[in-house]
Amino acid sequence: MSIGDNRKAFIAALLAAGCTVGMTAAAGAGSLGGPLELQDEGVFYINAHTVNTNFPDSASNTPAAGEITIDQMYVQYRIPKIVSGPPVIMVHGSGHTGVTYETTPDGREGWATYFARKGFPVYVVDHVGRGRSGFDPTVINRAKAESNASLLPSIPLTTRERAYPNFLIGAKYPTPYPGQQFPVEAQDQYFAQLVPNTETTLAGGGANTVKALDALVDKIGPAVVMVHSQSGGYGLQLVRDRADKVRAFIDIEGSCGPLSADDVSKSFKKVPTMMVFGDYTEGSTGPNGDERRKQCTDSADAITAAGGTAKFLYLPALGIKGNSHMLMMDKNNLQIADLIISWLGASPELAGVKKP
Amino acid sequence: MSIGDNRKAFIAALLAAGCTVGMTAAAGAGSLGGPLELQDEGVFYINAHTVNTNFPDSASNTPAAGEITIDQMYVQYRIPKIVSGPPVIMVHGSGHTGVTYETTPDGREGWATYFARKGFPVYVVDHVGRGRSGFDPTVINRAKAESNASLLPSIPLTTRERAYPNFLIGAKYPTPYPGQQFPVEAQDQYFAQLVPNTETTLAGGGANTVKALDALVDKIGPAVVMVHSQSGGYGLQLVRDRADKVRAFIDIEGSCGPLSADDVSKSFKKVPTMMVFGDYTEGSTGPNGDERRKQCTDSADAITAAGGTAKFLYLPALGIKGNSHMLMMDKNNLQIADLIISWLGASPELAGVKKP
Repeated sequence: MSIGDNRKAFIAALLAAGCTVGMTAAAGAGSLGGPLELQDEGVFYINAHTVNTNFPDSASNTPAAGEITIDQMYVQYRIPKIVSGPPVIMVHGSGHTGVTYETTPDGREGWATYFARKGFPVYVVDHVGRGRSGFDPTVINRAKAESNASLLPSIPLTTRERAYPNFLIGAKYPTPYPGQQFPVEAQDQYFAQLVPNTETTLAGGGANTVKALDALVDKIGPAVVMVHSQSGGYGLQLVRDRADKVRAFIDIEGSCGPLSADDVSKSFKKVPTMMVFGDYTEGSTGPNGDERRKQCTDSADAITAAGGTAKFLYLPALGIKGNSHMLMMDKNNLQIADLIISWLGASPELAGVKKP
Repeated sequence: MSIGDNRKAFIAALLAAGCTVGMTAAAGAGSLGGPLELQDEGVFYINAHTVNTNFPDSASNTPAAGEITIDQMYVQYRIPKIVSGPPVIMVHGSGHTGVTYETTPDGREGWATYFARKGFPVYVVDHVGRGRSGFDPTVINRAKAESNASLLPSIPLTTRERAYPNFLIGAKYPTPYPGQQFPVEAQDQYFAQLVPNTETTLAGGGANTVKALDALVDKIGPAVVMVHSQSGGYGLQLVRDRADKVRAFIDIEGSCGPLSADDVSKSFKKVPTMMVFGDYTEGSTGPNGDERRKQCTDSADAITAAGGTAKFLYLPALGIKGNSHMLMMDKNNLQIADLIISWLGASPELAGVKKP
């Protein structure tokens, strides 16, 4: 084969790929429910700190001390072509990353693109110390270099056996609850999303994510903040820190308190708050069960009693059954998104725009 | 303040945010050079394996053995509304994640969205064992539980002092080379992108990324594969494994060999290959210096001599000076992207479509 022949084969291959030139493929052929038109999208980091480490690697690799970046939070943003709502920050829970809000495990549209297609600028983060936010390996490399395993933090990764009861997929792996809306048939994709909670390598652990969220609303301005599960507590602290910059607080099966009288009067009274709960929490003694749900209704009552706006959205009470803890991935995930969007836009002025 | 008052304040706040309803903000107000219209975008994982671990956490946290997912590779895809080129898979280098190809540290457009806006479906990955691909914490938790630090792998994170010479930003931190195209003024954002190389926790380490890339081209079909730095070697092995599914191989300052006669005749002769090199490699004795550049020209010569297509794109020889090792982030990053796109479409038939 001469160079010319190979070149021809190359061009033929490219042409084969280019045969759709000028054609617009049907929208919705993939996971999206319609085309996504963005005026901007991208990535930035916030809350980064520069520190010196003596253990950027282990001793056997002859590391040199030097400066590294820690405490940074990865932020991916999508700004729709036509903006018709406030920014929405989406924060995931324990064991997860921002992938929580992307394509569902079974390949349907997730909330990140859905809210963007509904006109909201969307900011999806990875917790500080996790996923694309990186972490500080100093303590691990030091433990190795100094032969001192007692220095090590725990680095938990959620097993399937733990995920089933805790995330309300089923009482015991591998048997899902009857009527389950979670896409169990695609659970291999779901379990692939789980990552170790490496924020344990950072002084302050999860508190760094609160600081990063504080910095994020300082940067982008007042935003709707949506939290899930573990990040419920992070969202509560964000509201305490920046009530003037949280336009609405949406707590998806996350911690709701307890709220002090001061919390309510100084912060939560000013921030419209919605708590969303799916199915299977009744009778559950796990972290996302009866105790948490009661805490949320208590907090909603306290906010309302003080003159604030709080909505406890209990899906089973609306006849929406079978939702797991991962309700942004469940088969009816867009129905739930629509309920949230409706609540956000429940004014006569905005109803026409926001109505799903 | 009554509930009504609070509600009014909430609505007023939402309205303030909604004041752009129906307005299309000017394209390019952010990092993108123009609007991005996608028929699909999303996330999936590939190459996932389910294994049992006795240490999903450390002993002090009373873990229970169970099943976890390892070896998975995170893939984020963007399918433009109008497809006019083959899929392009973008693979980052050591210490990085797929963020390499997203927005530049100083907030300009990166290659991922640029190639998508030019009509290529784009697939950005995180190496297996890194970033959103997660990793296996078993060995760390076991080392803690058994008080045996000798079990620990090294978990390297690149310091600024190492990044400067190795990534050709400057001979010594913090002084950049004169004429540097790297956005040094935004280096805090750049260093925030760096993550630990946690693939060292996996049996096989980086070889898992090769297997995942094999699986990815099996899934999506023949694609252009772009690799950078550390992933040069991964790309070489992918070409050996799947020459029929690599439409073109673009090696950005990555390893180029050495290639055996068999490698060339069985694989590389069939895969059009471009090696791209920036500035500052001449005289550099680091991993991305003289030795690597010579290896690449040798491999290009061997492929060409065997009748294949290989292009060694040496930017300084074209008068394009000052490019760092991170040339997809450099100030002239889109100029370099255009050179690659031109090469991909260097046929009379495709020139009109592909011309930047």
